[in-house]
Amino acid sequence: MDIQAILEEIHGEVSPCLKMGRVASYIPELANVPAERFGMAVRTVDGASYAIGDAEERFSIQSISKLFTLIMAVQLAGDALWKRVGREPSGNPFNSLVQLEYENGKPRNPFINAGALVVTDVILSYLDEATQTVRDIVAALCGKADIEFDLAVARSEQLTGHRNKAMAHFIKSFGNLDNDPDRVLEAYFHHCSLAMSCHELCEASLFLANNGIAPMSGDIIMTPSQVKYVNSLLLTCGTYDAVGDFAYRVGLPSKSGVGGGIVAVMPKRFSLCVWSPGLDDSGNSLAGTRALELFTTKTGISIF
Amino acid sequence: MDIQAILEEIHGEVSPCLKMGRVASYIPELANVPAERFGMAVRTVDGASYAIGDAEERFSIQSISKLFTLIMAVQLAGDALWKRVGREPSGNPFNSLVQLEYENGKPRNPFINAGALVVTDVILSYLDEATQTVRDIVAALCGKADIEFDLAVARSEQLTGHRNKAMAHFIKSFGNLDNDPDRVLEAYFHHCSLAMSCHELCEASLFLANNGIAPMSGDIIMTPSQVKYVNSLLLTCGTYDAVGDFAYRVGLPSKSGVGGGIVAVMPKRFSLCVWSPGLDDSGNSLAGTRALELFTTKTGISIF
Amino acid sequence: MDIQAILEEIHGEVSPCLKMGRVASYIPELANVPAERFGMAVRTVDGASYAIGDAEERFSIQSISKLFTLIMAVQLAGDALWKRVGREPSGNPFNSLVQLEYENGKPRNPFINAGALVVTDVILSYLDEATQTVRDIVAALCGKADIEFDLAVARSEQLTGHRNKAMAHFIKSFGNLDNDPDRVLEAYFHHCSLAMSCHELCEASLFLANNGIAPMSGDIIMTPSQVKYVNSLLLTCGTYDAVGDFAYRVGLPSKSGVGGGIVAVMPKRFSLCVWSPGLDDSGNSLAGTRALELFTTKTGISIF
Amino acid sequence: MDIQAILEEIHGEVSPCLKMGRVASYIPELANVPAERFGMAVRTVDGASYAIGDAEERFSIQSISKLFTLIMAVQLAGDALWKRVGREPSGNPFNSLVQLEYENGKPRNPFINAGALVVTDVILSYLDEATQTVRDIVAALCGKADIEFDLAVARSEQLTGHRNKAMAHFIKSFGNLDNDPDRVLEAYFHHCSLAMSCHELCEASLFLANNGIAPMSGDIIMTPSQVKYVNSLLLTCGTYDAVGDFAYRVGLPSKSGVGGGIVAVMPKRFSLCVWSPGLDDSGNSLAGTRALELFTTKTGISIF
Repeated sequence: MDIQAILEEIHGEVSPCLKMGRVASYIPELANVPAERFGMAVRTVDGASYAIGDAEERFSIQSISKLFTLIMAVQLAGDALWKRVGREPSGNPFNSLVQLEYENGKPRNPFINAGALVVTDVILSYLDEATQTVRDIVAALCGKADIEFDLAVARSEQLTGHRNKAMAHFIKSFGNLDNDPDRVLEAYFHHCSLAMSCHELCEASLFLANNGIAPMSGDIIMTPSQVKYVNSLLLTCGTYDAVGDFAYRVGLPSKSGVGGGIVAVMPKRFSLCVWSPGLDDSGNSLAGTRALELFTTKTGISIF
Repeated sequence: MDIQAILEEIHGEVSPCLKMGRVASYIPELANVPAERFGMAVRTVDGASYAIGDAEERFSIQSISKLFTLIMAVQLAGDALWKRVGREPSGNPFNSLVQLEYENGKPRNPFINAGALVVTDVILSYLDEATQTVRDIVAALCGKADIEFDLAVARSEQLTGHRNKAMAHFIKSFGNLDNDPDRVLEAYFHHCSLAMSCHELCEASLFLANNGIAPMSGDIIMTPSQVKYVNSLLLTCGTYDAVGDFAYRVGLPSKSGVGGGIVAVMPKRFSLCVWSPGLDDSGNSLAGTRALELFTTKTGISIF
Repeated sequence: MDIQAILEEIHGEVSPCLKMGRVASYIPELANVPAERFGMAVRTVDGASYAIGDAEERFSIQSISKLFTLIMAVQLAGDALWKRVGREPSGNPFNSLVQLEYENGKPRNPFINAGALVVTDVILSYLDEATQTVRDIVAALCGKADIEFDLAVARSEQLTGHRNKAMAHFIKSFGNLDNDPDRVLEAYFHHCSLAMSCHELCEASLFLANNGIAPMSGDIIMTPSQVKYVNSLLLTCGTYDAVGDFAYRVGLPSKSGVGGGIVAVMPKRFSLCVWSPGLDDSGNSLAGTRALELFTTKTGISIF
Repeated sequence: MDIQAILEEIHGEVSPCLKMGRVASYIPELANVPAERFGMAVRTVDGASYAIGDAEERFSIQSISKLFTLIMAVQLAGDALWKRVGREPSGNPFNSLVQLEYENGKPRNPFINAGALVVTDVILSYLDEATQTVRDIVAALCGKADIEFDLAVARSEQLTGHRNKAMAHFIKSFGNLDNDPDRVLEAYFHHCSLAMSCHELCEASLFLANNGIAPMSGDIIMTPSQVKYVNSLLLTCGTYDAVGDFAYRVGLPSKSGVGGGIVAVMPKRFSLCVWSPGLDDSGNSLAGTRALELFTTKTGISIF
């Protein structure tokens, strides 16, 4: 199969819809990214690498950071994590407080904002320099020492993120945050502000297609069992409240962010990352989702 | 009718249930109030005054302050207030965020916490020294210069009030707070910490039974129309999510607080205040509600 | 006070808004009533009677029947009724099933559809010929032997009332109906189809302003205590999800129906009925609500 | 890999938990099935077949029928089906009406009761003898002419299924049923009453592991694309409100029923069916879920 040719076909086919999505506008740093950007990268477990478009350009990974903080929390807390956050799709918008109230402050899963705040709280309880360690681990996973937080993005989120602040205090009111909500929020906003390229995100998540072993370093990041767990969570909870539709169209465990990035995993075979800043109504990259759908259709490869 | 004799009868009859309620325990200042305290005071529009028990002892008025801040907001903003807060019973607990999410940050009424935060925000936008002015007005209404905030209570609420903080940030996220949420919260926690006695609360609310005129000073606090409005809001929204049951049993416009106080108004005739710290499941004073029920039954006086 | 002159003033003032409401359109029998109809009647406990416009024309009383079935259930079952239906405003539309699910099939109050179905079930368990008895009692209360069900209306409701059918089966699934849901629905649809005039509804509800005694017959319908209870329920639950606004504007215990009628009670003094088929967004008669508001403003009489 | 040996190991390991679940008790036909029954069957696309325990005993397939009716509706209506039913996990219990109200009568997915009622309505609109045709198709898929409805089960459901009746009328009230609710319910209750064995269910669903081709007959049941769609729906919506946990533990697209059966699919490789009547809190077979988890763990085969 000529993956590079398929990527080129996809690039051509998604061009008309690059401007159809809406770029996230709640902070200037996201609003100012040109809508027509598009990049895509594939990295196989046996070492091949393919890319197209702006695959080397860094963008704000936003909620994709929830994947990396989850991985760290699983490493640090093991199954005890699941006493504080669930493993079910929420059926509600990612920033809803309704379910949280009905379910006494236990978020449905680690990939909605409420869940990621609890995951961040867990990490903060284990690590003195948690935020820096998150950066270090992500940098190590993709083999690039210069991965950094975009401090302007973090600051803007801090100024406008009243919904996330409400959520942190709400969870604290149920006793499900151990640390000060303001400290949890600061760490959370930093994680979301990490800037990475498609290529780097592919590298960083390739161990999920490789039984838990980072192929570059040979490091064991997770056990095969844990990888199976994380991939299933990506499939059932990774793309906001469009997980059903996303699984139906794309059929790969995936995590999206409002910066327009989507990371996807084909277990045992490859990782994939696509970026296009225009979002659909669910907050997933519109052209990015279409590109992934075209990829699984053209290659005939999906988990289903 | 011998009101004093009726108060004495009531005092006897409620004694067995003084310890049946649960004293609010989320801050030490409330938790340490002895459960067996009981006071009751009546003040008629034609100058008579009756009292029993601990009617002169000051307690934390808590949510009863929502009545005074509403009055100020009505004076300052007039009908424009109702663009930002509704006039309907919520059917939900006083500190729920669910309805707020479904209704885009517009609280159901001024007597749930969310509504009182918006009311406080309105006052802050009009007055430079809003918190001090609230104190001054309440002090003037009851003719006691030494009415004060209990700063220990305000500080404790500040430390533990994560649900209220969540609510303020949540409302802000919908654009329904003009001021900084932290400033609104600080003012709100101060208002709730006012310490007053049954006697003083009777005086302060007597104008609601007197067509809007404060009987001691002769000052016009509100128009007769506005008084009708406030009394109807007290009846339909003043006693947390037990308004129906409370109207059924007591039949008077009333506002309760978790400090155990309840202020009630019989239009054109008298105001009434009862205090007993033990609360029922809805957060209303258990013995206090019973005392008011006995009062309207024994006197045959209610609005129904 | 010249009540007749006031009614004439009101008639003039509401004329412009007679066509502003929307006539209920879900069954042809309601949809075909001309929007410009308007009638109003007042009946005092000391025998005076006033009327204006179409006060003698019969219309479909619809939800006003919930008042009469509640009265019967209180007479038959006493306080045991409150184990099966609550006494709190719902804060939700009259035909919502959401709250019913969260609260395990116990309706919030007797004046939402779910509550009236339970009330009807209670009556059916006590009386063999329940539906006929409801008619007989209403006929006796207003002293008109020819009060009848409009069978065409009842049949239309039967054909289109899927929401009410859903509700009856839902309540049954929680075990809160003793009788067959279809039998309960048939009785309920009949009660709603009663045709009565403003004048007749005034007569039938006058005992609520007269300590429970029907003035024409001298019959004791309820105890003074029960009257207080029913009036408080009317105030807090009688006008769909607009009870707060209605109390704020009108300030009288009231029950409305989608046929455009509203019955109101001023305890100890008079009953009132207004009819105008155009409804506001809450399902209350638009011109009718305005007429009642004008009445309490012009007379200065309300419970607040 | 010695599948038969693995099945035997699993049989031994699940024995202690056969009596830990609760057998569905709302109708006598289900309540009377002995809790200690256990069967499991595997059928590979290349013709191998394995079984253990009561794999030939027929049981009530209940909600597993939703898989077969969905397949028929996809065949009959194509993508038009998705205008009437969604493709997202509900996050709520399978028989909840709450979401249905908030989302105007469009069920979240075809595997909750509300969704299956709409699917049944679609089939009824296309086929004169819909219920019989459902039976015929299922019989053909598993190659057993004697597959039959259990009429006693269907009748019991009809008598007690008030929640489902509520749901059908509720959906009708939103205009999302074309046929009479009673007719839809009758068909639905019949489909749920089909009696099949593990072995037969394996056969009937094997085409989902075989690109849409029924291996016994060679018939094309669905396109490969449609198979991918159905498998993704099974994964995200097939096991009530435990889909996340189920995917996490088992990692296979699956459909469960309250009769204690679970069908699972490993795309391109095999289908699997397990039966044990005791249910967990989510309504999935307790020992059955454990058996599937052991199977994917022991074989190292899952979609993740």
